[in-house]
Order: sequence, then structure tokens, then C-alpha cells
Amino acid sequence: MINKKLGERTFAFLSPPSVLASACVGGKKEGEGPLRGEFDILNEDSFFGMETWEKAESEMQRLALSEALKKADMASPDFVFAGDLLNQCVGSAFGLRGSGIPFFGVYGACSTMAESLILASMAVDGGFASNAAAMTSSHFCGAERQFRFPLEYGGQRTPTAQWTVTGAGAVIVGESAAPPYITRFTSGRIVDAGIRDANNMGAAMAPAAYDTLSAHFNDTGRAPDYYDLIVTGDLGALGSELLRELFSDGGGPRLGKNYTDCGLLIYSRGNADKPNRFAAGKTAESGDQDVQAGGSGCGCGASVLAGYILRAMKKGRLERVLFAATGAMMSSLSAQQGESIPSICYAVSIENHA
Amino acid sequence: MINKKLGERTFAFLSPPSVLASACVGGKKEGEGPLRGEFDILNEDSFFGMETWEKAESEMQRLALSEALKKADMASPDFVFAGDLLNQCVGSAFGLRGSGIPFFGVYGACSTMAESLILASMAVDGGFASNAAAMTSSHFCGAERQFRFPLEYGGQRTPTAQWTVTGAGAVIVGESAAPPYITRFTSGRIVDAGIRDANNMGAAMAPAAYDTLSAHFNDTGRAPDYYDLIVTGDLGALGSELLRELFSDGGGPRLGKNYTDCGLLIYSRGNADKPNRFAAGKTAESGDQDVQAGGSGCGCGASVLAGYILRAMKKGRLERVLFAATGAMMSSLSAQQGESIPSICYAVSIENHA
Repeated sequence: MINKKLGERTFAFLSPPSVLASACVGGKKEGEGPLRGEFDILNEDSFFGMETWEKAESEMQRLALSEALKKADMASPDFVFAGDLLNQCVGSAFGLRGSGIPFFGVYGACSTMAESLILASMAVDGGFASNAAAMTSSHFCGAERQFRFPLEYGGQRTPTAQWTVTGAGAVIVGESAAPPYITRFTSGRIVDAGIRDANNMGAAMAPAAYDTLSAHFNDTGRAPDYYDLIVTGDLGALGSELLRELFSDGGGPRLGKNYTDCGLLIYSRGNADKPNRFAAGKTAESGDQDVQAGGSGCGCGASVLAGYILRAMKKGRLERVLFAATGAMMSSLSAQQGESIPSICYAVSIENHA
Repeated sequence: MINKKLGERTFAFLSPPSVLASACVGGKKEGEGPLRGEFDILNEDSFFGMETWEKAESEMQRLALSEALKKADMASPDFVFAGDLLNQCVGSAFGLRGSGIPFFGVYGACSTMAESLILASMAVDGGFASNAAAMTSSHFCGAERQFRFPLEYGGQRTPTAQWTVTGAGAVIVGESAAPPYITRFTSGRIVDAGIRDANNMGAAMAPAAYDTLSAHFNDTGRAPDYYDLIVTGDLGALGSELLRELFSDGGGPRLGKNYTDCGLLIYSRGNADKPNRFAAGKTAESGDQDVQAGGSGCGCGASVLAGYILRAMKKGRLERVLFAATGAMMSSLSAQQGESIPSICYAVSIENHA
């Protein structure tokens, strides 16, 4: 065995794969938010020209991958690792139909962007591929009717609820000398703190983020301030505050101003957001998008990573990023059966110097 | 890049991981079938002591993994790759809750056993783990109500329908000098031949099996008779006949008596089964279990591989096996929306001589 392990759950790639290209797609609301300039493709039509929201989600994945491949000047990646929130992950399966690309389906709920990025990087570093794509998506309308209520019902949302991002992101990693590089990852495991409120995913997932980020800092010996940006996927306003509290109460290192969440970056929440180095200037300009505790969904972390974050890294505005996407591994049925919400978090170090 | 690729879509492991141990769990009907003696754990109660069928499915995964770990004399694997058919793969997530094992969720529908076995082997061969588990499950009652009708409705089944196996299988691969070894794999890709009948999964998936098995024979230069056993996951009676026809009509190599399907092995179909080297003697003894075109579900290929097949390999009765599980990547909603059924197949070579 070539030992790539650091500590308990973290791994260092021997030949860190480069991010060759990335692309993201968003809907109308995403195009009205503070990151509007960071999307490759924005569409006012929530159907993306298709007949149903589910087919629209597949189309978003197809567009994101196709745009990323165009940027990488590549016809097809060696593998694609993809998944989504729709039952049986049909967003990915139908999105890849006709592509002929070797495909590994993954399911990590909203952690899918980090999980798929890790598996794609493992395939490259492990000598199975020159390059591989990682991809996921979510769609507000499809998610609402699958997990909550028919949109026509007009159900009221709780203050802790989050708004599922209509978006997709694709990242292609591969062998190259050009930064940024995928340097390390910390694996996830199921953490269940007993939260049963399906309208409070942030609270359910924060303990998983704490579990994985703590392991990352312990295993690597890196303090949180090693990174320019530590970003969770979709903990939202409440979950990200809880994560800060778990760190300050746990006696470990504190998360500083370099920590934020993709669910806080993607939409404007008016005066609700506490100023933070990344979100502050951006929220002021767009008013309040009425998204309660912020954005969520696989497409949240995916589109913010594939757009805003990786663009900032390519331009050198960010040098060292820890991307930690979290997933709530429940279903409507498990909630109806009175179960709590098992969660998971995967962390990926992306750095301009390997 | 360490080039492990053979031809278009097949890979040879540099240090083929061994199958360290495997275990399988089944329900009442599986315990009445011809493979009754090949299960590690059989339970007459379809609830496995739990309150719901979904929780029973998680319990089956927990039991299968725990039994496999016991056989391998191991407290915990470095990673587990697992998934299932339930919406949002709750079978795996809840089954692993409390285990603390680093977890990658996968979704390949009924191809999950092969997909997870490939990813687990890639993790070991790629130097990320000393060992890793691959696991999946399905439950007849949970699958019926999720994909078809409430059981209480007593809906009639078509002759092409298959019976979802109530079962789970776990396989642990790792570094060892002992056979059997995971030697090669051929990746899957989405194949959609336009079949829309959700009661005829065998027909929907056979073209994917043909696509991947053809690639395997082309890439490796191996003819079908290289293997003692070529076994698909759950094509059933109709799908496996279609696969034979695709090979004979395609002008490629023909599949001989060494080809069968886990869905034909696991239940008795009385006189319906054509005699074949593996199923023939076994079906006669158990009469007709009224399973229409045979077994299906993630648990079908998983329990037959983790039980009957790997036991026969350990005993030397089989030396070279090609395990090719197929998945129908649709959902109830995609079928309701009039979509055809995209399918995928992954093939894994398991051999007693690496």
C-alpha cells in the first residue's frame, strides 16, 4: 500500500490533480443574487426549455458538463462521478444519457459535490484516469414537490427553512501542472445528533461538519487560519452559526472571518446577514431575496464552487480553500417514520500551491 | 499517470485486491429457494425485528457488514461504499448510522454491488485504503410500495415482472495474498434502448449488459469461455435471453452454458427455467416460487455474489468469474413522465489466480 493517509481520516494525494475547468448553471433567482456574475449560464425559464422540472434538472447537468468540457478543450472526460437529490438520482442518469461517458453514480445528498470531487480525484491520483468530472445539481421546484409540498399549495416556510438552489456545477480534475490543485481530503461518516425537524437541515448537518472539519484540522495539523476560505455547502444562517458554536464550545480552534457557507453567499438576505468578509459587500446590493435561512441543495455548493470560488482561485484572489459540503441523508419517508436526520460531511483542500 | 487501462473501458489492477470476506442476509422467500444453504443469515420475519420495511432493509445491511467483518476478523473497514434502491438511499445511510465508518454513498440501482466493488477496489489499489467494504440491499415490500403498488392492493404481476429480493450482501476487499482477487473491471455508461415498460426491467437493462460485456471481451481479448461463470445481476429470464440474442445477433462471441443470471439462481421457477449448468439442478428441488421472470433488486446480485459465488470460489469450484450487475436508472416519476429507462452495467473480474 502506498500510504496516502494523514492521521485518522485525511488523505494527501501523491500527485495532486489539477482543476482543469469548471462551469455552473443557475436559474432566475440565482441570476438575481449577489453571485449573478459568477455563473456561466443563467436561464430565466425554470424549465430550461424542457417539459418538467426533473428534465430541466438533467438539462442543467448536461449544460454544466458541456460548458466545463468546452473550457477544458476536451471532448469527454475518462469518468464522470455524479448524483443528485431526485429519487433514484434521475437528474444525473438522464443528464448523461447519450453522452457515452463512463459513469459512477454517487449519492451524498447535498454533500455530493465534495464526495464526487474526492472520488474523481482518487481515480486520477490512483492511476485509473487522466481526468474525471464531478457533477451535481438541484432544482427548487422539483425538490419542493418531492420533499415538502406541491408548489401550488403555497405552504408557508419556517424561518429555519432553506431555499433549494436551482443550479448545477461541474468540475473537471486531471493531470496538469496548472493550479489550482486538489491536495487533500477528509472522508465523511454518518453523524446523527437526533434532529428530526426536516425544516431545519442546517442544525441536522452542523454536527457532521464539525466532525469532519475537526478531523481535518487534527489530521493535518493545520489551523483554520491556514485557509483563505473555509466554506461549507449549505448549512445556511442557522447551521453555520451552530458550527461556529460547536467549535468555540468544543475547545478546539475557532472558525474566524475566513469561514462562510455557500448558502449565505448565493442569495441576498437583506439585513439578516451578519457582515462577513465574503458575503457582506455582496448582500447589500441585492436586497432581500426572501430565502429564510439561505440556500441549500446539491446545486448550492456545486454552483458556488464551480463558479465564484474556483474563478477566484484561478485569478489568485483565493489561494487556499477548504470546501466542506454537508448532506442530510434522510428521505420524506424516513421523516414520516419519525426518524432523525443522519448527516455527512466531506472536506476537500483546494490550493494554488500543491 | 500509472496506466491501468486496457482498451477502451477496462482496467487491470496493479495490485489486485483480495476478497477478504463476504456475507449475505436473506428473508423468508430467499430461505425457501435453491440457494437457502448459501446465506449467512436468514430471517423469517420480513421486518427483521424492526418497525418498518425500510428500517428492516437498513438492519439487513448492518447484519451483512457485521457478519463479513467478523469473518475477516476486522473491527472496521477503512471505507464502505454502499447504496440501495430506496429514495435517497436511506437503507445504507441508516444502516451505517452509529458505525463511525468512513462512507461513500453510491447509486447504481441494481448495479450497485458491482459499482461499489469497483470503487472499493480502486480505493485499495490506488493506495487510499488497506481494505474497503462494498455493500447493498433491497427489500421486496419496500420496493413494491415505492415503485409499484401498496402490497395491500394485491396488484397482479405481469409475466415479465421480477421479484425484488429481500436481501443484502457485503464484500470486503483488501491487501492480502489469498484468493480470490478482484483483477479487472469494465466501467459502465448509460445505455437507453427506449424501453418504457417498468414491468420489464430485464429488457431495459439487457442492452447495457451487452454494451459493457462486449467492451470487456474486446478490451481484454478474453472470449466468454475464459470464465467459468459469467453472471449478470438481475436480468431475469427474459433479459438474460435477450442478452444471449444480442450477442448471437451482434456477430460477436456467443454466451454459452457458463452464462447465467443471479435472478435465475436465487429462486425456483419450476419448469420455466431452461436447464443451465448452474441453475438446473437447483431449481428442481424447490418447485415454483411464483416469481415470474425471476429475482431482481440490488440485493439479488449482492446476496448471490456474497454467498453462493464467492463461497464457490473460496472452495475452488469456480476459478474465474465475471460479475456484471445491471441497473435501471429510472424512478417512478420518470416513468410517469413517459420517459424510457436508462440503464447501466459494470463488470468485475474475480479470479483465483491474479
